[in-house]
Amino acid sequence: MLQADRMWTGAHVLTMEPGEDIIKNGAVAVKDNRIVAVGTSTELAKTVQAVETIDAGGKLIMPGLIDAHIHSSYAVIRGVAQDMDHWMQKGIWPWMKYMSVEDRLAGSRMNLIEGIRAGTTTFADYDREMDSLLDQNASLGVRIHAAEMINELPDDVGDLPVTELYPLDREAGERRLKAGTDLYDKWHGAENGRITVLLGPQGPDMMSLDLLQRTKAEAEKRGVRMHMHVCQGDRELYQLEKRYKKRSIAFLDEQGLLNEQLTAAHLTEANDEETAYAASKGVNMIHCPGSIGIIDGIVPPVQAFLKAGGKAAIGTDQAPGNNSSNMFQEIKAAAVLNKVKAGDPKVFPARQALHMATLGAAEVHGLDREIGSLRTGKKADFIVVNLATPALTPALTNPVDTITPNLVYAASGEEVEDVIVDGRYVMRERKLVHADEAEAVNRAQQRAERLAQKVTF
Amino acid sequence: MLQADRMWTGAHVLTMEPGEDIIKNGAVAVKDNRIVAVGTSTELAKTVQAVETIDAGGKLIMPGLIDAHIHSSYAVIRGVAQDMDHWMQKGIWPWMKYMSVEDRLAGSRMNLIEGIRAGTTTFADYDREMDSLLDQNASLGVRIHAAEMINELPDDVGDLPVTELYPLDREAGERRLKAGTDLYDKWHGAENGRITVLLGPQGPDMMSLDLLQRTKAEAEKRGVRMHMHVCQGDRELYQLEKRYKKRSIAFLDEQGLLNEQLTAAHLTEANDEETAYAASKGVNMIHCPGSIGIIDGIVPPVQAFLKAGGKAAIGTDQAPGNNSSNMFQEIKAAAVLNKVKAGDPKVFPARQALHMATLGAAEVHGLDREIGSLRTGKKADFIVVNLATPALTPALTNPVDTITPNLVYAASGEEVEDVIVDGRYVMRERKLVHADEAEAVNRAQQRAERLAQKVTF
Repeated sequence: MLQADRMWTGAHVLTMEPGEDIIKNGAVAVKDNRIVAVGTSTELAKTVQAVETIDAGGKLIMPGLIDAHIHSSYAVIRGVAQDMDHWMQKGIWPWMKYMSVEDRLAGSRMNLIEGIRAGTTTFADYDREMDSLLDQNASLGVRIHAAEMINELPDDVGDLPVTELYPLDREAGERRLKAGTDLYDKWHGAENGRITVLLGPQGPDMMSLDLLQRTKAEAEKRGVRMHMHVCQGDRELYQLEKRYKKRSIAFLDEQGLLNEQLTAAHLTEANDEETAYAASKGVNMIHCPGSIGIIDGIVPPVQAFLKAGGKAAIGTDQAPGNNSSNMFQEIKAAAVLNKVKAGDPKVFPARQALHMATLGAAEVHGLDREIGSLRTGKKADFIVVNLATPALTPALTNPVDTITPNLVYAASGEEVEDVIVDGRYVMRERKLVHADEAEAVNRAQQRAERLAQKVTF
Repeated sequence: MLQADRMWTGAHVLTMEPGEDIIKNGAVAVKDNRIVAVGTSTELAKTVQAVETIDAGGKLIMPGLIDAHIHSSYAVIRGVAQDMDHWMQKGIWPWMKYMSVEDRLAGSRMNLIEGIRAGTTTFADYDREMDSLLDQNASLGVRIHAAEMINELPDDVGDLPVTELYPLDREAGERRLKAGTDLYDKWHGAENGRITVLLGPQGPDMMSLDLLQRTKAEAEKRGVRMHMHVCQGDRELYQLEKRYKKRSIAFLDEQGLLNEQLTAAHLTEANDEETAYAASKGVNMIHCPGSIGIIDGIVPPVQAFLKAGGKAAIGTDQAPGNNSSNMFQEIKAAAVLNKVKAGDPKVFPARQALHMATLGAAEVHGLDREIGSLRTGKKADFIVVNLATPALTPALTNPVDTITPNLVYAASGEEVEDVIVDGRYVMRERKLVHADEAEAVNRAQQRAERLAQKVTF
C-alpha cells in the first residue's frame, strides 16, 4: 500500500491536466508536501493507506489558483485611483511619494490574505522592498514567486509632468539591482522551495539600457526568467519612442530580450503584429483584464498572443486600480472581456480561463513541473471548494459539465473552504491558519489613514 | 424626541441621494417599515429615541441593491449554456422542455438566496409560474417586483430550427396573459407593499401583434409599466424582420409602445440611433452586462442610452448564461465592460454603476418614491457591509473616497453582513432569517439531477 499522511475522498476532482474531465467521487492523497495519488475514491481506497482520511463529499478539489502578476504592497492604497486619466502619474505617484516600508508591509499582508480567501495558493509578487515582504509573508504558508521591481527612477519621481522623459537616477538603479540579486541569493528555494525568485525589471521605459542589460545578465547567470512590464501603457511607448525612436517590442527584440526567458505583463499597447511576433519568439504573457480595463479602458491582445501559439496567464495586478485581488473575479473578467472584444461568445471558454489561472499560469512562470495541476508527484497545492452553495449549484457532470463554467462565471471566492499549500493548511474552514486577518486589516487601515494625511495633489 | 424601533449608529452611511457624500459616524433610524431619520450619529442622538440601538462601527450602511432583471427560476439549470452560439435555442430550450413548476420553484428559491447573500433587497423577477414562485418566495422577506412572462410560444418549442419563424399558439398566449393579469389582481401590493406586479410580455418576437396590444391595454388599465425584452438578440430582429419587415424599435414605436411605461431589457442589438430614439421617448433601460457579454459577446448600448438622457438600471438576468446573480459582480462588469467599449477609463465611474443598482434602478422601475436611497420616509431597505475586510480596506473618505470604488471594483458580496427589508432582517450575520439555505441548495441540486436524466440534444 502507498503511504499517505492525508487523503481527501468523495469529492469531485478537477485535475486541470490537459484533456482530463472532472473525476466524480474522486480522491487526492498527500504525503509530506507532495501529491502521492489522484483518482477515484474506489481506486485509492485499494491502493493508499492514509493516516487521516477526510470526507470531502459535496466538495470540489482543484489546483490552487496562481496569481501570475500582483504588486501586493500597493493594497495599502486600494481605491485611491480609478475612473481617471494618467492613472500612474496622477493617481498613484502622489501616494507613492509617502509610502514607507511599514505601509507596504501592511498592504502586502492584507492583500495576500485577500487572495488566499479566494483560493490563490501562488502569488507572483512583483514589488518593492521584497526582502522585507518575504520576511513578513513567508510564514503565511503560501507559495511566492517573487521579484524585486528594479527601476532607475528617483525616489521622488511623484511630481514629474506627464509629458517629460523620466529622469534616471544611476545610484537608485544600482541599489535596486542589488536588492534584486540579493533577494535571489537569500530567498530562492527557501521554505522548502515555497519561495522562488526571479529578476524583475519594472519596464523598458523605467531604466537605462545599461541597467536593463545588466539585469538580463544577472538573470541569465542565475538561470531564472525576468518578470517585466512590457507595453504596459501609452506612457511606456511615449518614453521609448522619445528615448530610442522605437516601440517596445522592436526595442526589446534588438536588445535580445524577446525570448522564453521573458515573462511579459500586459502588452496593453502592443498591436496584433507585435503581439504575434513576441509569441513566436517564445515570450510568455500575463493578462490582467480587470486592472487594464479599469486603468486604460483596454482589453490587451491576449487572444492574438494565444492564436500565435504563445502561453498566457492571468494576474490581478495592483489593488489601487483593479481593485480586487480575487482570482475568481479575474477569471470571469478575462472570459467576458475577451468575448466582447471578439464579439463572439465562443471565445475564451470557461476551461481556458481556468487553465490560465492554474496549469497555464504555472507554465508561464516555469513552475509547471511542480504546480498547476493535480498529478502524482506534484506539490500538494490545492483548494477545497464547497459545491453546495447557491452560486455553484447545480453541480452536474453529465450531459454537460456545469461545474467548470459555474466556477468561472458564478463563484465569488467565498465558496473556497480550505487552502492547502505544500500539503499544509493555509486556510481551514475559511479561517487563516497562520495569520490574524482582523489584525492585518486593521493595520492596513491605520497605515492608509496616516498616508491620507500626508498626500497632496 | 422622534420614536424609533431601531437605530444603527457609528457607521459610514452611503445614502445614494444625488450629490450626497458618505456620512462619517452616521446613523439610520427605523420605525416599522420606514426610515425615520438619517444623519450623523451626533445629530440623531439628540433627536431620536430608539427602543434598540445597534453599534455599527466599522460598517457601511447603504441602500439594498436592486436587481432590475432576473429570471430566478432558471437557476435550476445554472451552468448548462455558455461559450456557445444560439444560446437560447441550442443551450436553454432543450432543458426548458422538461422544466416543471417544481424545478422552477427550486431554482427560484436558491437564486433569491444567492442574491440576498450579496446584498440584493429587491428582485425584479420576470419569470414563468410567478404565482407559484410568489407563494413560495414571499416569506423570504425581500421585495419582489414581479412580472409573469407572457408569450405565445407552444409549450414544446424546444425543437424548433434556428432559422424558422416561431410558431404561435393562441391558446397558450391567452393562458399566459390571464396568468399575468391574475398575478396583478392577486399579488399587487401584497405583504404590506413588498410585492408589486407589472405586466411582462416576453418580447415583440414571441407573441402576435394582437396579444402584445392586449397586454399593453391590460397594463394601461392597471396603471403599471411593462417589463419586456427589447432587441434582446439577433434572433429577435430576425423574427421581426421576417414577420413585420421592421426592426424592433421602429415596430414598437409604430405600435405605441415606446414611452415611459416601457422598461426595456437589453437593447443588445439596437444601434446607437435606435437607442437614443428610445431614450428620447422616455423608455427605461435595463443593462445586463454579464449575461449579454457571455451569451452574445456584446456590450449593449447603455452609454448611448444614458447620453441621450435615458434612465438605466443593472440586472443579472438568468443564471444559465451569466451565471451569477451577485449584483456586486454585475456592477463591476457594467463599469469595466463599458470602459473598454468606450476605450476610456473615465467612462462609467464607480458612483454611476452603483446608482444604476440603487436609486437609478428604483427610478427605472417606478419605485423611487419608496426605495433606492436612504432618506427619511422611504422604506427601510438597506444592507450593512463590513468595511473591515481585505477587499474594502482601506476605507477612506478624504482626500479621496475609496469606499465607493472598492464596493464597485473589489467587493465580492461576502462583505454584506445584514440585509434589512421593510425594517426587518432578511439576513443577519450572513444567516438567512426566513430560509434554510442548505435545504434550498440541496433541493435545486436534486431537481437538476432529475432534469439532466431527461434532456437530449
